[in-house]
Amino acid sequence: MSALALDAVELKSFLDREFPQICDQLQIEKVTPMCARMRLLCDDRHLRPGGTISGPSIMLLADVTFYVAILGMIGPEALTVTTNMNLNFLRKPAREDLLCDARILKLGRRLVAGDCLLYSASGSPEKPVAHAAVTYARP
Amino acid sequence: MSALALDAVELKSFLDREFPQICDQLQIEKVTPMCARMRLLCDDRHLRPGGTISGPSIMLLADVTFYVAILGMIGPEALTVTTNMNLNFLRKPAREDLLCDARILKLGRRLVAGDCLLYSASGSPEKPVAHAAVTYARP
Amino acid sequence: MSALALDAVELKSFLDREFPQICDQLQIEKVTPMCARMRLLCDDRHLRPGGTISGPSIMLLADVTFYVAILGMIGPEALTVTTNMNLNFLRKPAREDLLCDARILKLGRRLVAGDCLLYSASGSPEKPVAHAAVTYARP
Amino acid sequence: MSALALDAVELKSFLDREFPQICDQLQIEKVTPMCARMRLLCDDRHLRPGGTISGPSIMLLADVTFYVAILGMIGPEALTVTTNMNLNFLRKPAREDLLCDARILKLGRRLVAGDCLLYSASGSPEKPVAHAAVTYARP
Repeated sequence: MSALALDAVELKSFLDREFPQICDQLQIEKVTPMCARMRLLCDDRHLRPGGTISGPSIMLLADVTFYVAILGMIGPEALTVTTNMNLNFLRKPAREDLLCDARILKLGRRLVAGDCLLYSASGSPEKPVAHAAVTYARP
Repeated sequence: MSALALDAVELKSFLDREFPQICDQLQIEKVTPMCARMRLLCDDRHLRPGGTISGPSIMLLADVTFYVAILGMIGPEALTVTTNMNLNFLRKPAREDLLCDARILKLGRRLVAGDCLLYSASGSPEKPVAHAAVTYARP
Repeated sequence: MSALALDAVELKSFLDREFPQICDQLQIEKVTPMCARMRLLCDDRHLRPGGTISGPSIMLLADVTFYVAILGMIGPEALTVTTNMNLNFLRKPAREDLLCDARILKLGRRLVAGDCLLYSASGSPEKPVAHAAVTYARP
Repeated sequence: MSALALDAVELKSFLDREFPQICDQLQIEKVTPMCARMRLLCDDRHLRPGGTISGPSIMLLADVTFYVAILGMIGPEALTVTTNMNLNFLRKPAREDLLCDARILKLGRRLVAGDCLLYSASGSPEKPVAHAAVTYARP
């Protein structure tokens, strides 16, 4: 669980190539062993009436950030897929970028589980907008 | 728990007015007491590499279908919000419309809870693509 | 997904042998393909102040009923283990036996997922006490 | 998020009085604002075949630790009840005491949400046995 299999630059190239439709919305902030931080670049596509960020946008950010944390540890396994996500919506997100901190709690050969804390870019992780528990299956 | 507060036609008008950004993607199929069925009109926006429907699109369909089931029972309370969603991804969805059956298991004064079964339009509820347990809070 | 690998009588013998500490609390009511129904024989051990059934007792019933539904399909694989359980507590259970209906939604080679509806023995599945979404991993 | 409404000694008295049936199994280790740590005193009641701690015992520990974290902030509201718990089982627990760290992520007037990390007493929070996301409703 020590060194990274892929660093932030390599992960960005991988996402750009494999998921072109999301890479203009999401930006890797940092990747460390068992962890990743990403940013949702908030624009009109992500908003709901009242100027709040939509649930599916929150889910997208949590899902991709956890995926990046996994790939940082195991390398480019595109077929790794989400099997479970439990989302708790805690506060109305502001109309601004959203940050997500993912941490892996168990890096198994078959299942990888952990969680994500999401908070507004001008806010703090102590006032999270949402929390997600996530499980991925490896091929 | 008997009669509907809003029928399918009234619910469609409500969604068109309050959520214009989603109403071209989602269609109400039917609404009965404590239940709703909706369809995701699958197009390129919903796809991931390999031609599969994205997780956020699945979540959007589950979230809106459950919301419509609630509004069918309680009337137009736009401020009703999702507090928890637990998603299990069961099968790779085909590149086609997705159906979602939502059922309310508890219609409380403060919390409404239930679940959603999602399946491909040419498939069957016996081979679901995803299952979602959902909780909404009423204002 | 047709015939049962183990019927209710064989499943009872298996539970009695492998899980002697729970078999006086739980009773198999019926097992059909992809489904099982079990009963929690309510006694003082399961109660909380106010005469309500405790959360861990509810979880035990959901967990074992889903396990029995799986074993009915795949035979006696004692090493099959719970990886995720999402519990929604819907109504205060009465001080009486609790029934649980489990259904398998996906019987995979590695993961088995589905859900459980729990309701009081004198009540009805339309007024559930709890709902559980469950995932098991096969060895 | 500042001072505690009840400290560890007062919380112990409250649990002893209100939940006599569990207080010989569970011990408060520490309580700080928005957080609590408790210990499951492992004995034969908590074990499953193979000497592992049962799922319902893990759930009990997570549930009570989160409850204690809430009461530390809001004082003795016995009627505060669990509405949702999402459990991920990550590693087989050893046959020894289990520790649980609960943190509150949102202390709302109606809903309180957060999570719990559970690990073996001789192990470390970096190798958790289970993770629980929890929501309680206030009366």
